[in-house]
Amino acid sequence: MSAGESLRLLRERKPLVHQITNYVVMNETANATLALGALPVMAHAREEVEEMVALSGALVINIGTLSPHWVEAMVAAGRAANANGVPVVLDPVGAGATKYRTDTAKRLLTEVDVAVVRGNRGEVATLVGVAAEVRGVEAVGDVGDPSELARAAARSLGVVASVTGAVDHVSDGEGVVRVANGDRLLAQVTGTGCMATAITGCFLAVAGSPLDAAAEALVAFGVAAEDAARHARGPGTFHANLYDALAALDPATLDARAKTE
Amino acid sequence: MSAGESLRLLRERKPLVHQITNYVVMNETANATLALGALPVMAHAREEVEEMVALSGALVINIGTLSPHWVEAMVAAGRAANANGVPVVLDPVGAGATKYRTDTAKRLLTEVDVAVVRGNRGEVATLVGVAAEVRGVEAVGDVGDPSELARAAARSLGVVASVTGAVDHVSDGEGVVRVANGDRLLAQVTGTGCMATAITGCFLAVAGSPLDAAAEALVAFGVAAEDAARHARGPGTFHANLYDALAALDPATLDARAKTE
Amino acid sequence: MSAGESLRLLRERKPLVHQITNYVVMNETANATLALGALPVMAHAREEVEEMVALSGALVINIGTLSPHWVEAMVAAGRAANANGVPVVLDPVGAGATKYRTDTAKRLLTEVDVAVVRGNRGEVATLVGVAAEVRGVEAVGDVGDPSELARAAARSLGVVASVTGAVDHVSDGEGVVRVANGDRLLAQVTGTGCMATAITGCFLAVAGSPLDAAAEALVAFGVAAEDAARHARGPGTFHANLYDALAALDPATLDARAKTE
Repeated sequence: MSAGESLRLLRERKPLVHQITNYVVMNETANATLALGALPVMAHAREEVEEMVALSGALVINIGTLSPHWVEAMVAAGRAANANGVPVVLDPVGAGATKYRTDTAKRLLTEVDVAVVRGNRGEVATLVGVAAEVRGVEAVGDVGDPSELARAAARSLGVVASVTGAVDHVSDGEGVVRVANGDRLLAQVTGTGCMATAITGCFLAVAGSPLDAAAEALVAFGVAAEDAARHARGPGTFHANLYDALAALDPATLDARAKTE
Repeated sequence: MSAGESLRLLRERKPLVHQITNYVVMNETANATLALGALPVMAHAREEVEEMVALSGALVINIGTLSPHWVEAMVAAGRAANANGVPVVLDPVGAGATKYRTDTAKRLLTEVDVAVVRGNRGEVATLVGVAAEVRGVEAVGDVGDPSELARAAARSLGVVASVTGAVDHVSDGEGVVRVANGDRLLAQVTGTGCMATAITGCFLAVAGSPLDAAAEALVAFGVAAEDAARHARGPGTFHANLYDALAALDPATLDARAKTE
Repeated sequence: MSAGESLRLLRERKPLVHQITNYVVMNETANATLALGALPVMAHAREEVEEMVALSGALVINIGTLSPHWVEAMVAAGRAANANGVPVVLDPVGAGATKYRTDTAKRLLTEVDVAVVRGNRGEVATLVGVAAEVRGVEAVGDVGDPSELARAAARSLGVVASVTGAVDHVSDGEGVVRVANGDRLLAQVTGTGCMATAITGCFLAVAGSPLDAAAEALVAFGVAAEDAARHARGPGTFHANLYDALAALDPATLDARAKTE
C-alpha cells in the first residue's frame, strides 16, 4: 500500500467519480474530488444513473438527505456499478438517528455489493447491531474499542469498514489499519466525513484493494487537514485552506507523513 | 437576557438543531450552527422528520426553495415539534414575491405553533397584510417604521417577530428590542438571513424565552459579522471569516459588545 | 460593446436574475450574482416559476442535476420568460455524458427561445451533432476549431453560442469574439462554468444584445478570476477570493483589461 503511488496514479488517470450524495455537501465533495485530481459528477435521476455509473471509476453513495426517489436511484446505480465492476463506497450518514436512515443503509448493503462503508463509530455500530447513540449525524458516547468495531463490521457486513474519528480504524475483517492523521478542526466543518467518503471513492478507482483505498484516502485527507490547519484562524479559513491543501498534496512525500500502524 | 450566558449554555449542551431549509444555504447554515457550537441536522423526508425533530432542541423551517413534498414535510415536522415541546422558528423567504411562498408561509403559521418568525421587512410586512415590495428574496422600498412593523407582526401572528435589516427589530407584541450589531457585507453574501434564522434556532434551544432567543441570536451573529469584516477584502473572505468568528465568539465579552436598546 | 458600461448599469439597476440550476452550485452562483451587483433568486417549483420569472430581468436554466419535475419547471419557466420578453441563457451541463442530459438540453432548445447557450466544447459539440467526449461534466479530447464550433452552434441552434475553455469563443453565427481572460485555477473549482452562465444571465438583463452580454460576462468573470488568482494559494482560497474580486470589479477599468479580439 502506498498513498503516494495511488495519488500519482489518480492525477494521471483522472477517474470519473459518480456521487449520489446529500444536498448539504455536494459542492464540497465535488470540490474535494477536483482538488485531489479526480473528476466528480453528481447525478441522481433514475433516468441516467445507470448510464453515468457505467462511465465511472467509482460510485459514492451517501444517504445524508434521503427521500424515496433518491433511494431508488441509489439502488439502481449501485446495481449497475456492480454489473460494470465499478467499486462502491457507502456513507450511512445518520444511521441510528432515525429508522428510515438505518433501514435505507441496511437495504443498500443487502441489494448492492459495497466495497467500503465509511462512517463514524455510531453509524457503523448501528449497522452491526451494537447499541449506539447518534445525535443527528454525530456519534456521541462510547461504543467500545473502535478497532474491534471496525473488524466486526467488516466481517458481518462483508465490506471494508472505515470507521473515522480522532483516530481512524480501517479493517477488512482480518487486520486493522489505524490512521492518526487529521486535525480537530475537521469536526467543526460540516461534510468533512462526506469528503472522506468521496476521497475514498477517488482512491477506490485506482488503489490495489478496497482496504488500501480506504486507508490511503484517510491518510491523504488527514495530511491535507494538517496542512490546512497550519494557517487557519478557525473553521471557515480551515475549510478554504483544505482545498488548497488537497491540491498541493505531494505524492512523493505523502507516505512519509502517514501516521499509520 | 444575556447572549453570553445563552452561548455558554449552548456550547455546554450542544443541542441538536433540526433544519428543513433551502438547497441554496444548507451547507452554510449547517456550518454556522456547528461553528457556534450546536449540532445541525438536515432531514426533509416525510418518512423521518417526525422522528428526527423529537430528538432535537429546536426546529428551523425555511421556505427558500419550496416544492409540495417539502411543504408537507415542514407541516408534519412542525406539528411533531409542537407535540414534543420543541420550539420552532420560521423563515418566510420570499413571502410577497410569489403567491406560492406567501400562501405557504401563512399555512405554516396556521398549522404550526411558531415561536419566532425571522424575516426581512418585506417578508414580514407581507405576512401582516402591509403592501411591500419583495424583489425575489430581497426587501426593497419602504414599509414604514420597522419597530411598529415588528410589534404589529408579533401581535397579529402570535409570535415573536424578528425583523432584520441595517438595524434589527425584535418584538413579542409588547416591547421592541433593537439590535444594531452587524456589518454591511452581510448583504453581499447569500444566506446570511438564513444563517440568522438557524442561529435563532440554536438560541431557542437554550434561551429563557423566544424573545430573548431571537434578540440574543442577532447579537451573537452581528458581533461575529463585525469580527469577520475586520480582515475581509470582500464578500468571499468575509464569508470564510464569518465561521471563524462564530467559533471564536467569547461568552464572557459578548454582552458588553451588544448594541441593543 | 462595453463590459464596463454594462457592469455600471447592472449595479445601478440591480436586476433580479431567476436561476433554475443544479444543487451543486446554487450557493455559488447566487453569491457570484450578488457579488457582481445583481439580485439572484432560486425558485424551481412548478407552482411559482412562471410568476417569479415574470418579475425577473433574465432566466438562467442549468441542467446540472436533473430530474423530471425540474425539467417540467424549466420548460414552464422558459416559456413564461419568452412570453414576458425575459432573455434566457441555457447551460447544458453534461450534455453528451448521458442520453437524458442530451435529450433534455435539446428539448429545452426546441420548446424555449434561448438567447445564449453557455457550455464547454464537448457539451456544445454534442448539441450540434459533432462527436465529442464528455467525461461526466468535463470536456476531454479535441473537437476541432472552437471558433468554428461556436459559429456552427450559433447557426444550427439559432442562439448565441458561448463556448468556454482556456480561451472562450462567442458567436452569433456571423462574427466570433475570442475572450482570453481567466485563470487556470477556474478548472479546479466546481461550478465556475455555472457561474459564467449565471453572470451571462446578469449581463443579459442589461447589455445591448445577447452577443454583447455573453462576451462581456466572460470578460468580467475572467478579469475577476485573474484578480482572485493573484493572492490564492490553491483552489480553496482562489474560490473565496473570486467573490471579493467580482465585488471589486471596476467598471471604469474593465474594458481596458479585456483580452478580446
